Amino acid sequence: MSFEITSEFLEKLTELIADNNEKEIFSLFKDVHYADIAEVLDEVNFDEAIYIIKLLESEKTSEILTELDEDTREKILDNLSAKEIADEIGEMDSDDAADIIGELSDERQATVIKALEDDELAADIKELLSYEDNTAGALMAKELVKVYETWTVAGCMRRIRGQAKDVTRVHSIYVVDKEDRLVGRLSLKDLIIAKSDQKIADIAKPKVDFVYVDEDDEEVAKIMAKYDLEAIPVVDNNNVLLGRITIDDIVDVLKEEADRDYQLAAGLTEDVDSDDSILHLTRARLPWLFLGLIGGVGAFIIMEGFQDVFSKYAALFFFTPLIAAMAGNVGVQSSAIIVQGLANDDVKGSINSRLLKEMLLAALNGLILAIFLFGFVWIYEGKMNTALAISVSLIVVIIVAGLIGTFVPLFLNKRGIDPAIATGPFITTSNDIFGILIYFLIAKLILGI
Amino acid sequence: MSFEITSEFLEKLTELIADNNEKEIFSLFKDVHYADIAEVLDEVNFDEAIYIIKLLESEKTSEILTELDEDTREKILDNLSAKEIADEIGEMDSDDAADIIGELSDERQATVIKALEDDELAADIKELLSYEDNTAGALMAKELVKVYETWTVAGCMRRIRGQAKDVTRVHSIYVVDKEDRLVGRLSLKDLIIAKSDQKIADIAKPKVDFVYVDEDDEEVAKIMAKYDLEAIPVVDNNNVLLGRITIDDIVDVLKEEADRDYQLAAGLTEDVDSDDSILHLTRARLPWLFLGLIGGVGAFIIMEGFQDVFSKYAALFFFTPLIAAMAGNVGVQSSAIIVQGLANDDVKGSINSRLLKEMLLAALNGLILAIFLFGFVWIYEGKMNTALAISVSLIVVIIVAGLIGTFVPLFLNKRGIDPAIATGPFITTSNDIFGILIYFLIAKLILGI
Repeated sequence: MSFEITSEFLEKLTELIADNNEKEIFSLFKDVHYADIAEVLDEVNFDEAIYIIKLLESEKTSEILTELDEDTREKILDNLSAKEIADEIGEMDSDDAADIIGELSDERQATVIKALEDDELAADIKELLSYEDNTAGALMAKELVKVYETWTVAGCMRRIRGQAKDVTRVHSIYVVDKEDRLVGRLSLKDLIIAKSDQKIADIAKPKVDFVYVDEDDEEVAKIMAKYDLEAIPVVDNNNVLLGRITIDDIVDVLKEEADRDYQLAAGLTEDVDSDDSILHLTRARLPWLFLGLIGGVGAFIIMEGFQDVFSKYAALFFFTPLIAAMAGNVGVQSSAIIVQGLANDDVKGSINSRLLKEMLLAALNGLILAIFLFGFVWIYEGKMNTALAISVSLIVVIIVAGLIGTFVPLFLNKRGIDPAIATGPFITTSNDIFGILIYFLIAKLILGI
Repeated sequence: MSFEITSEFLEKLTELIADNNEKEIFSLFKDVHYADIAEVLDEVNFDEAIYIIKLLESEKTSEILTELDEDTREKILDNLSAKEIADEIGEMDSDDAADIIGELSDERQATVIKALEDDELAADIKELLSYEDNTAGALMAKELVKVYETWTVAGCMRRIRGQAKDVTRVHSIYVVDKEDRLVGRLSLKDLIIAKSDQKIADIAKPKVDFVYVDEDDEEVAKIMAKYDLEAIPVVDNNNVLLGRITIDDIVDVLKEEADRDYQLAAGLTEDVDSDDSILHLTRARLPWLFLGLIGGVGAFIIMEGFQDVFSKYAALFFFTPLIAAMAGNVGVQSSAIIVQGLANDDVKGSINSRLLKEMLLAALNGLILAIFLFGFVWIYEGKMNTALAISVSLIVVIIVAGLIGTFVPLFLNKRGIDPAIATGPFITTSNDIFGILIYFLIAKLILGI
């Protein structure tokens, strides 16, 4: 079933565009899904993309626009007139329309909204743009099927035939009172099964999940995932029904959240993908690398402070990358477990019990690793006291690294800061410095230098 | 709207259970969502959980069971008889039923399936259990609404009233020919809007997305996300309709995939959460730490090989943690970008062009960082040639680290291996060793030793 973009397809398309063969281009795209056409537009050159957008009917191009990469879309919109954009927007659901208008400059936003033929859509878009980013309001669509509790099933069916035409997918029918306050819901199935003279109030389910318009979108995602909802109505503080959020929008929220956590863990400060410019990628990567550089300079200063012991115990210095690596890895592991647990709401119990558990865990892991390291150093270097000093230090370093990795994200979370920033380079760098410092202090103590 | 588990609630519950006050417990849970009750059961002690499960009606407990943590569920199922489990299973959709039966021992599976009263469900479960893990077949449910193309709208409505009762959510009505082969689809909305004497074949949409039963579940997730589908039918190789997959199952697949990638990047080999036992957590963490230990020993051996230069250029050795950290961080950054790009299907162009871009990017980042490091070393140590040697090495190390980080996941992906295993400790460790080796070789060259 899936459509593959082949080089033959692209060549043929380029040829047809060069020949201005509109009829053939139409038939080429006839049965192709808009999400696939969007991928084609990301592949072809810019003039060709504009040509195709202007050629195809706006019912299709409006869908294509919503699927395009943001960069490609921005370039295409720059080349369309406000009227042309308004025509595209006019075909979209209000949430997609608001998202795309939101990407335009303030001035252009006003012109495009003015050019819209549908006054209701214009008002909806203005409303949606007024909500803060990452809230339920910014995520919801205004399109929904709404019935009054006083209607009958038959009357309801008649009216729904009208409303449903504008709503791509009817998940639930929302029941409101005469002040438009949400009082219940119905499924289409309930309506089909009901007798036609029944009152809506009698067949509606009075228990209906909803979210407030200023709720955080990640919270909405959690609620919808937890209660297996496919759509959730959004209300204001007076319970007046404002819109609805559907699960496909939530899939996007979850994906973005996962991507961001992953990128933070990998040391990327901005949302980047591999096709971004070198400058954009540098902006995302350099800050973390710079942090690593500072950490490395810190480690240098510590080691220099211990350089007197070098003549006698050079081997100590050769193990610093090992110590730093272990401190970093343990820190990342324990912080990742906490960050993921916090994201899934299943970190229970007190911080102290967490730290105690991590200490036992790190001690166990550290002991096993230290036994191996002890064996290696003893056999390789032939000095038991050096081997002992390095191995004991390793255990302590691992315990401290685990405690830092556990404590920092829990602490940040308590302070209302996203704990995901604690993973990756941040933990690695601080653990490098602490690890090397502890290592030398303990080794000195054991070796009596 | 959301239910909070308070300590008062738990205390009251414990008291009521001790008093065996069934009536009060019923009323306590009356309006509580099953997903919330599942959370309560994860909190209370084991005997209380069993008591509650046995008390509440199976319509509710079957839903609760599907929401429980796997560990809690396993313990509860161990304490129920085959008949009791069969009663719970009987209330579930076939996909949830198969998932839960799949967690039992082979022997117990057979007993429970035999104890099922509904033969059709038993056959469905057996079929679902026969599909391989992580395929569309293992994910799908057998419940769906199916109509024959020869039916009329009125006839169809009558029959749907029957079928729809078993299907929690009707996304699409699937149209099949007389051999049960999928030929189209309809929405409930289409049916409501149509005239009652129209033939199904005339109003059905002939273009219907579907997946084959042996398709990989992550691929199904990609298709559903790309085409914004809320449900997708599953067919066998003869296009016979077997079941359907709904978006809520896909949300779980996406979450699991994101969690796994995140855990691999953080150096965790198994799916763990912070409440797992210390032994389980050790099993997930120790292998990666051991890899780090081997890497550290490798770095030790390299540094020992260069120890003759130590007397004159001790500072070189004090920068090894910095070099290792930078090599590791750059490697993780570039591999993470590639891994994420591969997951989102947007890594385009050849491997060579990727490597060239990464080389330029790493060179730019390396140059900026090297200038700072050069300044620091020159001022702090007062030796320009040492400063130069360290800074130039840093640039080369960063470039090589970036290339390894880019190449390894691309290479693994070409070989059909999950590129996510290349992130985290694997890249960090190999880059540590390469980085330190390159660093000493170049420093030696520049310093002429």
